[in-house]
Amino acid sequence: MSANNSELHEIGEFGLIDQIHKVVDIHPGDASIRANLIKGISDDTAVFRPTQGKVQLFTADAFVEGIHFDLTFVSYRHLGWKAMVANISDIAAMNGIPRYATITVSLPRRVTAGMITELYQGAARACEEYSCLIVGGDTTASLSGLAISVSIIGEAEENRVRYRSGATVGEYICVTGHLGSSIAGLKVLNREKDRYKKTDPAAFTPNLEPYKPALEKHLMPKPRLDFVKIFTDQVRIGALIDISDGLASEVHHLCKSSGVGATIYEHNIPLVAVTQRIAEEFSERPTDYALFGGEEYELLFTISDSEYQKLSEITNDVTILGRVTEKDIMLVRENGEQVPLQFGGYDHFRKSNKEM
Amino acid sequence: MSANNSELHEIGEFGLIDQIHKVVDIHPGDASIRANLIKGISDDTAVFRPTQGKVQLFTADAFVEGIHFDLTFVSYRHLGWKAMVANISDIAAMNGIPRYATITVSLPRRVTAGMITELYQGAARACEEYSCLIVGGDTTASLSGLAISVSIIGEAEENRVRYRSGATVGEYICVTGHLGSSIAGLKVLNREKDRYKKTDPAAFTPNLEPYKPALEKHLMPKPRLDFVKIFTDQVRIGALIDISDGLASEVHHLCKSSGVGATIYEHNIPLVAVTQRIAEEFSERPTDYALFGGEEYELLFTISDSEYQKLSEITNDVTILGRVTEKDIMLVRENGEQVPLQFGGYDHFRKSNKEM
Repeated sequence: MSANNSELHEIGEFGLIDQIHKVVDIHPGDASIRANLIKGISDDTAVFRPTQGKVQLFTADAFVEGIHFDLTFVSYRHLGWKAMVANISDIAAMNGIPRYATITVSLPRRVTAGMITELYQGAARACEEYSCLIVGGDTTASLSGLAISVSIIGEAEENRVRYRSGATVGEYICVTGHLGSSIAGLKVLNREKDRYKKTDPAAFTPNLEPYKPALEKHLMPKPRLDFVKIFTDQVRIGALIDISDGLASEVHHLCKSSGVGATIYEHNIPLVAVTQRIAEEFSERPTDYALFGGEEYELLFTISDSEYQKLSEITNDVTILGRVTEKDIMLVRENGEQVPLQFGGYDHFRKSNKEM
Repeated sequence: MSANNSELHEIGEFGLIDQIHKVVDIHPGDASIRANLIKGISDDTAVFRPTQGKVQLFTADAFVEGIHFDLTFVSYRHLGWKAMVANISDIAAMNGIPRYATITVSLPRRVTAGMITELYQGAARACEEYSCLIVGGDTTASLSGLAISVSIIGEAEENRVRYRSGATVGEYICVTGHLGSSIAGLKVLNREKDRYKKTDPAAFTPNLEPYKPALEKHLMPKPRLDFVKIFTDQVRIGALIDISDGLASEVHHLCKSSGVGATIYEHNIPLVAVTQRIAEEFSERPTDYALFGGEEYELLFTISDSEYQKLSEITNDVTILGRVTEKDIMLVRENGEQVPLQFGGYDHFRKSNKEM
């Protein structure tokens, strides 16, 4: 049995920590992150110098097997990536950049040291990509499923931090990228899983190629740190939030925090071809994927007309969804019908069919 | 059904978050913690101003049902307290003070909103006691057991941070408080649990009064932030670590990090009467409880003779265990026999009998 396949109880907690230490020892693009780290993994806590004059951002999220992810079709690398990215996206949603991360992992007995190494490789890969450093955490046994919790410290200029509460009546409501493909990808993965169960495994040859962009969006989402740079240096926005629970839910959060209403035009919701094709296969509405799907990690924000003009000269990866209004959160359907926008974000305690 | 007993799927994730928000809205003793918090729970991340000139400490720990705690005899309040204290102790182990915390909780279906409120009450109580503020986190469902992950940001003066690596040959090795009573308390709780299972529940009347100090140490341990003040302002120490995995394991960590050896005298290990009485009942060695028991949250540190003189005038809650040596980590038994100190700290992946 090679070192990588050794069962955890053979190499032990401290052996595992040594192995993890090597995996997460990366060089983030921003050298100041390493330069300001006085102590990383190897003591009771990490120690770092915050950048002078900057405020600190602090967030944590948990990911639980069977609730957030299904190891039937999610690799440990994707899992590590996604757990990290979900938190980095929260930092982006404040208009900040990530700096340091901790990760705690609770491991069932069936998980080998090799699998855990892959999980940390995925997390380290995301950290390398988005300039963050894993500086601590905890590995512990679990009697049941795998659970991961990531916590991130980020930084921002105080007068550039953007809140959910920053919307002003009359502003545009905009979104980065496109929506709905993450849940579309998940639907395909779940369908193939069901087919796999009903088929002779040897004869099971799924063709996932046509769905690739949706699968990638679901398995390896990208936080929109590219917009943080724009929103810090070039364009002033109002409110800001990331889309982790579906567009509808995030519009509600933003409006509630800002004490405003909104009108969203369904025909404006940015969709890509693969999402529309998958929705067709399932006889569902692609805009429902966008409104209620979640796990997109795009940014939803409000912006004045004049600032939007500036923004549109910098990037075309932004779509106007509608306007901030005095009150009432409305959806204008493609047929012109105006209906209250359902508060339909994902709620773990009401449904239990969502998986990563 | 009252609001507090409502099942989680009835009040939903956002209802629960509102409830938690109220519980954790405390006023820490150090007013600057609140004054420097620009945004707490209610946005994508918390936002705070670090104290100028201070370094930041960052740590995270996970607690898993069946591995770290047994809900048969641990209340949700104790659980919240202990999860917070274990992390605060890591901050104390760097000679720093806690400032902000996040907590992620994964909840099985059987857990009611009332139980979760109690868990957060326990966590908030610890935060109030040790001047820390819960500023974020995540609540999610769990298909299996309860899991908690706490992450804490602390602060310290850079030249007062103390590392595991700071030991110098010739220094004393000292410990705060007394050792062994946490595991002693756990042993009693496990014994009573076994008796409960074998007895008619109506006839089961355990008398836990004689064991109270040990049970308290196990269920509501206290981090030694009182020593952080001393080690920052009055006395200079060498290396510092907290005792979470048992004295033997922590001596090994400290020596390995510092590149030194140590001689520990068994007869110096500080024990209280209740620990000795419980060990007697179980026909075990009370010093083994101290060496291999863990979850004490006392501080282990090295100090020069002259600084120790100063320290002994300030407090008598410190015991000299032995000396830092060039190499070899030795235990001098009560009978004078000198043996290598076993590296016997708790390792979750090797044993699985430890519970909170």
